[in-house]
Amino acid sequence: MRSLVDLPVSLSRRSAVPLSTQLAGWLREAMLAGTLAPGERLPSSRGLAAQLGVSRTVITEAFQQLYAEGWLEGRHGSGTFVACLETPRSGPLSSTPSPAPASDNGRVAEAIDLRPGHPWVRDYDRAAWKRAWRKAGDLPPGGHPDPHGLPRLRELLAGHLRRVRSVAVGPENILVTRGTGNGLDLCALALLGGGRAGVEEPGYHVARTVLAARGAEVVPCPVDEDGVIVDDLPNDLGLLYTTPAHQYPLGGRLPIPRRERLLAWARSTGAMVVEDDYDAEFRYDVAPLPALYGLDPSRVVLLGTLSKSLAPDVGVGWLVGSPELVARIAALREELSDRTSGPVQQAVATLLERGDLDRHLRRMRLEYARRRAVIVETLGPVCRLRGDTAGLHVLAELSPDTSGGIVERARELGVLLDSTERHHHGWERLHGLVIGYGSASLPEVRRGCRIVADLIAGAGAARVAGVRAG
Amino acid sequence: MRSLVDLPVSLSRRSAVPLSTQLAGWLREAMLAGTLAPGERLPSSRGLAAQLGVSRTVITEAFQQLYAEGWLEGRHGSGTFVACLETPRSGPLSSTPSPAPASDNGRVAEAIDLRPGHPWVRDYDRAAWKRAWRKAGDLPPGGHPDPHGLPRLRELLAGHLRRVRSVAVGPENILVTRGTGNGLDLCALALLGGGRAGVEEPGYHVARTVLAARGAEVVPCPVDEDGVIVDDLPNDLGLLYTTPAHQYPLGGRLPIPRRERLLAWARSTGAMVVEDDYDAEFRYDVAPLPALYGLDPSRVVLLGTLSKSLAPDVGVGWLVGSPELVARIAALREELSDRTSGPVQQAVATLLERGDLDRHLRRMRLEYARRRAVIVETLGPVCRLRGDTAGLHVLAELSPDTSGGIVERARELGVLLDSTERHHHGWERLHGLVIGYGSASLPEVRRGCRIVADLIAGAGAARVAGVRAG
Repeated sequence: MRSLVDLPVSLSRRSAVPLSTQLAGWLREAMLAGTLAPGERLPSSRGLAAQLGVSRTVITEAFQQLYAEGWLEGRHGSGTFVACLETPRSGPLSSTPSPAPASDNGRVAEAIDLRPGHPWVRDYDRAAWKRAWRKAGDLPPGGHPDPHGLPRLRELLAGHLRRVRSVAVGPENILVTRGTGNGLDLCALALLGGGRAGVEEPGYHVARTVLAARGAEVVPCPVDEDGVIVDDLPNDLGLLYTTPAHQYPLGGRLPIPRRERLLAWARSTGAMVVEDDYDAEFRYDVAPLPALYGLDPSRVVLLGTLSKSLAPDVGVGWLVGSPELVARIAALREELSDRTSGPVQQAVATLLERGDLDRHLRRMRLEYARRRAVIVETLGPVCRLRGDTAGLHVLAELSPDTSGGIVERARELGVLLDSTERHHHGWERLHGLVIGYGSASLPEVRRGCRIVADLIAGAGAARVAGVRAG
Repeated sequence: MRSLVDLPVSLSRRSAVPLSTQLAGWLREAMLAGTLAPGERLPSSRGLAAQLGVSRTVITEAFQQLYAEGWLEGRHGSGTFVACLETPRSGPLSSTPSPAPASDNGRVAEAIDLRPGHPWVRDYDRAAWKRAWRKAGDLPPGGHPDPHGLPRLRELLAGHLRRVRSVAVGPENILVTRGTGNGLDLCALALLGGGRAGVEEPGYHVARTVLAARGAEVVPCPVDEDGVIVDDLPNDLGLLYTTPAHQYPLGGRLPIPRRERLLAWARSTGAMVVEDDYDAEFRYDVAPLPALYGLDPSRVVLLGTLSKSLAPDVGVGWLVGSPELVARIAALREELSDRTSGPVQQAVATLLERGDLDRHLRRMRLEYARRRAVIVETLGPVCRLRGDTAGLHVLAELSPDTSGGIVERARELGVLLDSTERHHHGWERLHGLVIGYGSASLPEVRRGCRIVADLIAGAGAARVAGVRAG
C-alpha cells in the first residue's frame, strides 16, 4: 500500500479552513488528477492520522464528506477505496475530434449540447423509479388536494433540508410547489403586488419573465464574481430574486459577509429575499454553505426544485418560509386552483423516504465533478474559467467580440454553446460562454471542449493577426 | 317479457326533438322511476320498433345513447338489459333522517357535503389506475419536456374530443395543461395583456381570481337561466370566460341561437371566447351540444380538465385552439418554465388509450344521474330547481333572505351547503342554494336533501307566520 505521505499533502493549521476540509480538498484533487486511481485503497484513518500528524477525527470527517459525495467507497472488512465508476475518469484526449456533420439546412444532426440549464437524466436507478410510481398508483386519487402539499412529503422535505441545507425547518415551513418558476410566481403574487422586483444581472431569464408576467417592474441588479453586489441594490425593491449558492450564470458563491450585508439591506428596506437554491446539491469541493434562509427566516423565502437534481419533467419543488407566509401562499393557491399533482408528490415522497434521492445525488455529484474536471483541464489553458466548483455550468470568460463567432462556428462543428448575452437584461460586465455539463456525457464533454478550446485558441490568434494587419 | 307498449310511451312526430331522443328520454325516466327495474330485459329493437310504429333506427339510436351513458348493458347473445349497479336505485326515503351531531365548537363531526365543485373519487377502477402509474414508471424521466405536452397524449386527447365533444381537432390544436385554472391563466397571458376580461355573473370564482392575478380588469357579465346574456356584453372585452355546456353555478345550457349571437359578438368586437367545457362529460338526458369551439375555432379557446371527470388531484387538462395560438402559448410556457408533469401525462395517456377513462365516465354518468334524480324527487316539491339535467350541481332557488339561514341551520344539522352568494361578484339576479352532488354518496345525498327539504318547508312556514304576525 502506497503511503499518502509520499504525496505532497500540505495542511495548514493557520488557515480558516478546517483541517478536514483541507484534507478532503486535497484528496479530491488527487483523485481528479489520477494521482489516486480508481480502486486504490486508502490507508486506515488511524495510520493516516499518524502520518499527517493530525487527530483521527480530521481524517474520518474528511472521509465521511468524500463518502457522501461518492468519491470513496467502503468494501466490507477491507477498508476504504477510491470509487470505481463505469465512465473512465481520465484517458488520452482525442487529438482528432470528429465533429457531427452539419446537415444541409444548417441544423446539427447529432450535436454535443454544452448549453446550461439541463441536468443529466439518463443515469437513474430504474428499480427505485419504478417502485416510486408503482406505490403512487397503489393509493387512490385525491379528492380534496391540500394546497400546502401532502403532509408526508412536507415532513420528508423538511428532514431533507435540515440534513442537506442545514436549515432548522419543520413541515409548517414547507409548501410543495411544482418547481422554482411556480415558487417564484407564488412569491410575486403574495409579496409584490405589482411593485419593483430585483433580478440578478446577468441572471436566470425565467425569473425575469415570471416576475414581469405578474406585472412587476423588473430591476436588473448587477452581479460580480462572488454574486449579487449588495452595495448597488436599490432601496425600493419589493423582492430580490437571487442565487447565493451558485450564481446563475456566473457561478459565484455569495461569501458570508456579503450574505450578512444582504440581510441587513433587506431588513432596512423591507424587501423580501427570494433565495433560489439552484445547484446547492452539487458542490465538488467544500460542503455547501448553509442556505441564506437560515440566517433570517423572516426576510428570506427559500426555493428549491427536483428539476435539476432529478429531472425537469417531474414537476416537484419546494418553497420554504415562515409558517404565516406559507399559510398565506397556500390560501392564495387554493383561490387560484394552483396545485402540484398528487400522485407525483406520492412518488417523490417514496424516493425521499427510501433514500433513493440521496443516493442519486451522490452518484450525480461524482459524475458532474468529473465532467467539470475535464472542462477545467481542456479550457483552462486557453481562457479564464470563472465560477465556483459547483453546479452544472462554468463561465469561460472571453472578450465581447469573440463569443458570438465561437458559438456560431461551434454549431457548424456540432457543438451547441450558449453565451452570457442571453442572460443579460442590460449592460454586460462579464462576457463569455456559459458552458453547461448536464446534457452531454463525459466523453462528449471532452470532445466538445476540445473543439471549443481549438476555436478559442484560433480566435485569439486571428484577433492578434487582425490587429497586426490593421 | 313485459311489453313496453303496456307503459305510456308517447312519441310525437311533430316535436323538434328527434324520435330517438324522445324515446331515450322516456326510457331514462322509466328507469329512474323504477318502472323499468335493474336487470330487466328490454324487447328487441325489431320488436319494439313494430310495437311503437317507428323505424328500427330510432330504437337502435336510443339504445346506443343509453348504452353510452351506462343505463343499459348487453349480455352476449341474450339481449339488452337495464344496468345493475351496486348502489340501490330507489328505495323508501328515510322518514326520520339522523343528522350528524354538531360538536361543541359548532363544527360538524361527520358532515354530509352538498357543496358544489368536487367530483366523486371513491369509485374508480383500481386495476386501471394502478396499471396507468406502473406504465408511467416504466418510462425514463424526461429531460427536455415539450411545453405542448406529450405528443402521444395530444393525439389521444384529440381523438377523445372528436368523439365526445364533436370537434374537428388534431394534435396540433391541443396543448396539455394542468387543468382549467392553468389553461385560463395561459389565455390571460397570451390574449389579454392586462385588458378587460368578462366573467359570467354569477360565475366560477377561480376564473375571476386567475384573471385578476394577471392584472386584468374583471367585468361581470350577467347570466340568466340559459347562460350568458349576449345582448348585455360590453364591446371592449379582450376575452370572455364562459361555461356554455353547463353554466356554473346556475346550470343553464347555452341554446344554439345564443351561441351564434355570442360568436357574432366576438367577431365584431375582436374578443376571444374562452369556453370552459365544465361538466360537458356529464349529461343525463340528451347528448351534449357540440362544443362552441367547433362553430368558430378562430374566436374560441376550449378548456377542459380531468379534475371533475377523474380527480382534482391528477393535474391534467387541455387547451384547444388554432395551431398558431397553441404554438404561441407553448412558447410562452417555455419562457415561464410552466409544465405539466411528464409521468402524469404518461399515466393519463394510458387511461385514454385503454378506454379506461371512457368506462369511468359512463359509470360516473349513471351514478350522478341517480343522485340528481334523488335531489329532484326530494327538493322539487318544496322549491324551484333550476339548471339543466347535467353536471354535478343544481340550483335550488330561494328568496334572498332565506338561503343564509338555511345554510347556517343545515350546518348545525350536519349538512354542508353553499349559496349563490359566494359565486357573485356584484348584484344577484337569482338566489338560492347551489347543491353539489359530487362529494356525498347516494344515501348521503338522500339524507341531506331530506333535511334541506324540511328546512326549506319550515322556513317558508316561518316566513308566512312572520308576515301574519307583523
